[in-house]
Amino acid sequence: VAARGAPGGGADAAASADGDGLRPVVAIVGAGFGGLRAARALAQAPVRVVLIDRHNHHLFQPLLYQVATAGLAPADIAQPVRSILAGQRNLDFHMAEVQAVDLGRRTLKLPAGDLAYDYLIVAAGGQTNDFGLAGVLRHGFGLKDLQDALRLRNHLLYQFELAAQTDDRRECAALLTFTVVGGGPTGVECAGAISELVRLVLVRDYPWLDQADVCIWLLEAADRLLPAFAPPLQRAAWQMLGRRHVHVRFNAAVDAFDGATVTLRGGETFPSRTLIWAAGIRAADLLNRLGAEQARLGRVVVTPTLQLPGRPEVFVIGDAAYLEQDGQPVPMVAPAAIQQGRLAGENLQRLLRREALKPFVYRDPGLLATIGRNDAVAQFGRRTFRGFLAWVLWLSVHLVQLIGFRNRLVVLINWAWDYFFYDRASRLITSR
Amino acid sequence: VAARGAPGGGADAAASADGDGLRPVVAIVGAGFGGLRAARALAQAPVRVVLIDRHNHHLFQPLLYQVATAGLAPADIAQPVRSILAGQRNLDFHMAEVQAVDLGRRTLKLPAGDLAYDYLIVAAGGQTNDFGLAGVLRHGFGLKDLQDALRLRNHLLYQFELAAQTDDRRECAALLTFTVVGGGPTGVECAGAISELVRLVLVRDYPWLDQADVCIWLLEAADRLLPAFAPPLQRAAWQMLGRRHVHVRFNAAVDAFDGATVTLRGGETFPSRTLIWAAGIRAADLLNRLGAEQARLGRVVVTPTLQLPGRPEVFVIGDAAYLEQDGQPVPMVAPAAIQQGRLAGENLQRLLRREALKPFVYRDPGLLATIGRNDAVAQFGRRTFRGFLAWVLWLSVHLVQLIGFRNRLVVLINWAWDYFFYDRASRLITSR
Repeated sequence: VAARGAPGGGADAAASADGDGLRPVVAIVGAGFGGLRAARALAQAPVRVVLIDRHNHHLFQPLLYQVATAGLAPADIAQPVRSILAGQRNLDFHMAEVQAVDLGRRTLKLPAGDLAYDYLIVAAGGQTNDFGLAGVLRHGFGLKDLQDALRLRNHLLYQFELAAQTDDRRECAALLTFTVVGGGPTGVECAGAISELVRLVLVRDYPWLDQADVCIWLLEAADRLLPAFAPPLQRAAWQMLGRRHVHVRFNAAVDAFDGATVTLRGGETFPSRTLIWAAGIRAADLLNRLGAEQARLGRVVVTPTLQLPGRPEVFVIGDAAYLEQDGQPVPMVAPAAIQQGRLAGENLQRLLRREALKPFVYRDPGLLATIGRNDAVAQFGRRTFRGFLAWVLWLSVHLVQLIGFRNRLVVLINWAWDYFFYDRASRLITSR
Repeated sequence: VAARGAPGGGADAAASADGDGLRPVVAIVGAGFGGLRAARALAQAPVRVVLIDRHNHHLFQPLLYQVATAGLAPADIAQPVRSILAGQRNLDFHMAEVQAVDLGRRTLKLPAGDLAYDYLIVAAGGQTNDFGLAGVLRHGFGLKDLQDALRLRNHLLYQFELAAQTDDRRECAALLTFTVVGGGPTGVECAGAISELVRLVLVRDYPWLDQADVCIWLLEAADRLLPAFAPPLQRAAWQMLGRRHVHVRFNAAVDAFDGATVTLRGGETFPSRTLIWAAGIRAADLLNRLGAEQARLGRVVVTPTLQLPGRPEVFVIGDAAYLEQDGQPVPMVAPAAIQQGRLAGENLQRLLRREALKPFVYRDPGLLATIGRNDAVAQFGRRTFRGFLAWVLWLSVHLVQLIGFRNRLVVLINWAWDYFFYDRASRLITSR
């Protein structure tokens, strides 16, 4: 594989002509929050950057559940990597899945051949963690990429179409029982969004639909929601979900799911055709093949400067990296990945200039979770907000963070429309 | 299956309560242009309407090629049937595929059971016609529903990603050769849209991309494009495509496609990874199972009042119906389906009132085809337009015809953005 993608080698010649051939190659694996920020931090550096991702787009994951619940379209929260980094002359993008990393030979194995690097930034992110539970991801739904979200959207909407065609009350009850597993932000936001989709939008599509026909479970293995938030906000979120007829059940751990029945630890079962697994993520599989020391959830242990111990040319960042701060692991959240991506790019340049590297210090920008219309919880340092004000904060922060003015504009229009007209734009079943 | 979809039969009771149980059931198969219009025409009639479609949405097919070429998102041109007809109290929608029609017993066979009807309107539309050619639809792409369009979009964009990773000039040439088959409006608009996607948008994503690397063929078996248009407009469209570097080849019929090589009748072959089949449609498969007399392209012969001969309770409309006017078959186009849908709904009510039925008279509203930015051809009676004016006409007519104000607004914003910023919103590869 040419470090600079070029059909028939045409651009290789061009690359040599402007001296690129002499510059060290920095391979970045993953175009999520961390990888993208690392690539940008290297924009002015005397290196050739090769950014690699399985997808051709950067995904704004915090709003993925809104695609799954028909509130936003995929293009609203995904932006092609090439268009985000179009102005960066020292960068080339490869859409490919990295099959293996040979740290000794400093090469990445890609489907089209090997890619040699001088420096490597692993920002491969996380993937849904099913803890080895039977059937949970085969019959249920994760929520990590656009395909997950579209599968879930098609499935959710199709359950109502099936319910409209059955005369069997028990069948109907199973079709209209939606089980969300995991009381973190993803589970809470997803359960709230399903409730609003049903109660505010679908009731008009299905006039026979009674609220009592629909049952939304939020199962949490521990005894509280949103563990990272302050206890008063945890209780507020629980009440907000209750007002939306989401049945929150604590100390409930799922043991198995076969597409028709949920089995809880302890043996209790109930019928449900839908199980959304928001109970956790772990580092991407690629990290298991690195041959490096791994901590909890498969995360690779890094030095405070974000390097692999004994491999100064390799940085690992984001969900893939394990680093403790004040005795706690740095959380697997977007702000941490963004801050580490920026530092990895800067530290790599210090390495090139033979300067001392800086250690990573995580700055918590605060926490936000929305439960639905006019209702959210927010926490910045010791200040907490709930209800309408927190909801406006949530809206603003997410709009500002979205990449691309066009996306912001379209999302704003979609949200405003839905808010005033109780509508959802994307109620399409595009495949079964 | 209950005629009115109701979980546990709850709404059946309601239906009886307001006297619905006594009203005749009108089943409409297909929620395309014809079926939707027929359903609306029956809004005030003393009947229960059951509208059935495989998809949960009505699709604005004339803009489907823009989804395939990353210009519009699926939700922009598709609207859930339930939301279109939300206000119509005498209507129920079933998302299901009709497996068979028993004309004698007056029942439709659906996956969930049989549905009895008193009157039937078959508006099942058309499907891609591959004329039995080997591999053409297995390896190539039709363009009839959203799944087709998304598959094609993912494929088109992925070819450029693959080309970026190869050093093999011949491989690259095959990846970047796009073959469109069929010189009707779909083929012409699709070839023009691919050319603009490449020349105006993707050149910025792939700076190494040379116009000479990309080859777009438009193959037409006859000796002219747009056969329904006046000859001067046919020549104008040909010139507009030429200016966009689309190679139009006349008298070229495709014989086979295996995913890598296109074989023409006569034996000539050339490498191409992409074949878009816009060479024709035929009536949907369901029509073959009706047991009625069929004319060319599987269309079912109907009386001038749009009924099945000998079956006054069955209407067939749109692409599925064959009727001659002035010695010519009514064309398989949206305006004909819309006009027939309206008349079928009205004639059915005349039947209920024992009045005389009206014969169908097709009124040609004119023809429009766009080739790209500022370039289109239009024909209204003897008046013809080309270039910018025709393009503005094309834009306006399509915006007005789109269902739903929200869709119109979003499409307008998308088009304006693309026009001024040479961008395409939906350059996402959502699956491979």
